[in-house]
Amino acid sequence: MEDARIAQNWRLTLAYDGTEFSGWQVQPGRRTIQGELREAIERVTRERVLPQGSGRTDAGVHALGQVASVTLLAPIPQAALLLALNRMLPDSIRILKCEQVPPGFHARLSARSKTYEYRIFRGPICPPFLARYICTVRHRLNTDAMQRAAASLQGKHDFTSFAASDPERRARRSQDEKEANIRAIYTSEWMSEGEMLTYRINGDGFLHHMVRNLVGTLLDVGRGRTKEDDIQRILDAHSRSAAGPTAPARGLFLVAVQY
Amino acid sequence: MEDARIAQNWRLTLAYDGTEFSGWQVQPGRRTIQGELREAIERVTRERVLPQGSGRTDAGVHALGQVASVTLLAPIPQAALLLALNRMLPDSIRILKCEQVPPGFHARLSARSKTYEYRIFRGPICPPFLARYICTVRHRLNTDAMQRAAASLQGKHDFTSFAASDPERRARRSQDEKEANIRAIYTSEWMSEGEMLTYRINGDGFLHHMVRNLVGTLLDVGRGRTKEDDIQRILDAHSRSAAGPTAPARGLFLVAVQY
Repeated sequence: MEDARIAQNWRLTLAYDGTEFSGWQVQPGRRTIQGELREAIERVTRERVLPQGSGRTDAGVHALGQVASVTLLAPIPQAALLLALNRMLPDSIRILKCEQVPPGFHARLSARSKTYEYRIFRGPICPPFLARYICTVRHRLNTDAMQRAAASLQGKHDFTSFAASDPERRARRSQDEKEANIRAIYTSEWMSEGEMLTYRINGDGFLHHMVRNLVGTLLDVGRGRTKEDDIQRILDAHSRSAAGPTAPARGLFLVAVQY
Repeated sequence: MEDARIAQNWRLTLAYDGTEFSGWQVQPGRRTIQGELREAIERVTRERVLPQGSGRTDAGVHALGQVASVTLLAPIPQAALLLALNRMLPDSIRILKCEQVPPGFHARLSARSKTYEYRIFRGPICPPFLARYICTVRHRLNTDAMQRAAASLQGKHDFTSFAASDPERRARRSQDEKEANIRAIYTSEWMSEGEMLTYRINGDGFLHHMVRNLVGTLLDVGRGRTKEDDIQRILDAHSRSAAGPTAPARGLFLVAVQY
């Protein structure tokens, strides 16, 4: 029998504590955000569909406002879907908003830009209640140099040096793939408040590990291991080895996606 | 050979996220706060000693200011002990302070009073980053009635009705044991701030599960299941079954110990 119900496209806004998940993307035998969301949707609507995220977040990375899209046949009101999904999901994943959107909306393809934050604790003793959401840096940091280096990342650049290195992919790297690593960064800045030092970046897209590699490099600038005007040289190198280390996942938050 | 070093008594102030521990007290084959602290002390000083806490906290209960005392032979400066212990401990346990105290100081026996807080979330969606430290209550609550019932707990009472029931112990309950359940409560009040509702209690001592049983009963008052002036009747019953349910561990914090 044909299903006469009308498909409705949904936009879900989620917050999650990524500590105990193997990242966003479904993987067999692993707990992932996308996997938990698929299960919750299936338990609520009996529909087995894979919600699409605005992008993947890695294991241990958190979200304040990840966005997913999914098309459902179930004729369920907005408020009821929100309540039912949150009842099914673990406390570490919360749906903040459910919105009905036109069929053309796709969480990843429709995204214009994204905002990430990286949170660093500068005090002597990190409160145990923040330990999962923050990375402690004890070294003296020249935050003025870090601020200038952060600002110099704004604009359109080839961020190959800040992308997770992938030897196989590098070997067969074509001109097309080279262009695929160009991203526009609209804002890139450090903010300091009390014992917290936060890096905030907004751009039209991010390569794998890009924010964590930028933070690791900017911290090297703060420690004097890298000069602030080396950023251009690192970008020009098109090589992961030119940049600094990858900052730990626990400090990173996907803050919001702009459409 | 005799150890000629002079024993120094220490007072340690700790904060911990109790979620992943089987409570304060050492237990074979389980991760406990006291056990982790003993390990850290042994790794730093090579001394196998059991630090004494101001009292036990149950599995899942947190602390902002638990106090432990321990006597060590190692002639280690205060600041160095603090740093070294925090280096050895997991991020979910932090030593906030190490102080040298006279030999007579004992974290439990010297305590004059203790302050606990129980944190309740009243909003529609609990942020995933708070889920471990808060208990969500969705029902309508008459907080005025809860406030009056809380205030009526102040003073000296036999809190048997609010102690974890222990059938064996009840059977052989003597006059002495009856008096052992008398405690003085100095302050007992609710505080409301935004989406948070917090119960704060200060008293000279607390029976097992007492704060969680008080909170469960006060929430029953808030929901109208128990009348606010039933508190005296519940106290007089000297029976656990007269009081309300035990509130979940995750919302409870040992805030401070007064000496």
